[in-house]
Amino acid sequence: MPDRPADPNEADPNEGAFYFEDFHVGRRFATRGVTLSEAEIVDFALKYDPQPFHIDKVAAATSPYGGLIASGFHTMVAAFRMVVQQNLFTACSMGSPGLDEVRWMKPVHPGDTLHAELEVESAEPSRSRPDRGRVRMTYTVVNQHGDAVMSFTAMQILQTRAGAEAEG
Amino acid sequence: MPDRPADPNEADPNEGAFYFEDFHVGRRFATRGVTLSEAEIVDFALKYDPQPFHIDKVAAATSPYGGLIASGFHTMVAAFRMVVQQNLFTACSMGSPGLDEVRWMKPVHPGDTLHAELEVESAEPSRSRPDRGRVRMTYTVVNQHGDAVMSFTAMQILQTRAGAEAEG
Repeated sequence: MPDRPADPNEADPNEGAFYFEDFHVGRRFATRGVTLSEAEIVDFALKYDPQPFHIDKVAAATSPYGGLIASGFHTMVAAFRMVVQQNLFTACSMGSPGLDEVRWMKPVHPGDTLHAELEVESAEPSRSRPDRGRVRMTYTVVNQHGDAVMSFTAMQILQTRAGAEAEG
Repeated sequence: MPDRPADPNEADPNEGAFYFEDFHVGRRFATRGVTLSEAEIVDFALKYDPQPFHIDKVAAATSPYGGLIASGFHTMVAAFRMVVQQNLFTACSMGSPGLDEVRWMKPVHPGDTLHAELEVESAEPSRSRPDRGRVRMTYTVVNQHGDAVMSFTAMQILQTRAGAEAEG
């Protein structure tokens, strides 16, 4: 395990696409960051989670949060976008059966900058289909102060290198 | 428990806002529906989950899904929007500590119409703060064929009626 999470973009993209075999237990990855603006927080929430403390600065000021905060769903998908953009799953993603233990620990405020840190918890080859395997990874979303604002565990079905070669 | 989930919009909005006390175990609710267009599916995924089978019809045709499907996150937030819009939590929502057992069971295709069905699993008053309680509800997202496409359990902190009256 490296001292700090490996940045997949440090690898030469022509050299190394990631496949199931690359996700060994304990391996860690980190994404680049994304800053959530007030406009972005309100836009997302107005469409998908229109609760007052996500869309209305005046109402939010008297809410338990004391001000506007991002929808927890927004925090989750903004972080997930950074993971996809990092090309970790570009070659091998075959979808996800689900997530476990989604937890929102701290509020995300306008102007906060988030990145995701991933760690492989388990990796099991499929018994019935040798071209793929199932990986469980913990995703932790971290703000600019180093605080974990949310976390979840994702199951992902990933293609094996041999499966990709047979297909391709 | 009613034969079919109760529609909170059938209640007179001037008469009954929902508070913690209204979420008794076994009580069920259903939302109205939302149709996910191809444009909406691609727009959401391009921003938050840009994998080929969510944004590229040509690539999706040769993916394991055989065609474009909605991001699982999109299915989740579109359904959640319908829940918020239903005014079930308008008076009482104090946020959510998390979700458990998020499961994507069936793909969602362009043109599919989704609604959410909710059932209260547990409801516990806070020991330390009498103005609120914690409710666990199962959310099931159902398509136009009656198939459950995804489900999850949400923990929500809800204000009590007494808490709202004391505040207000």
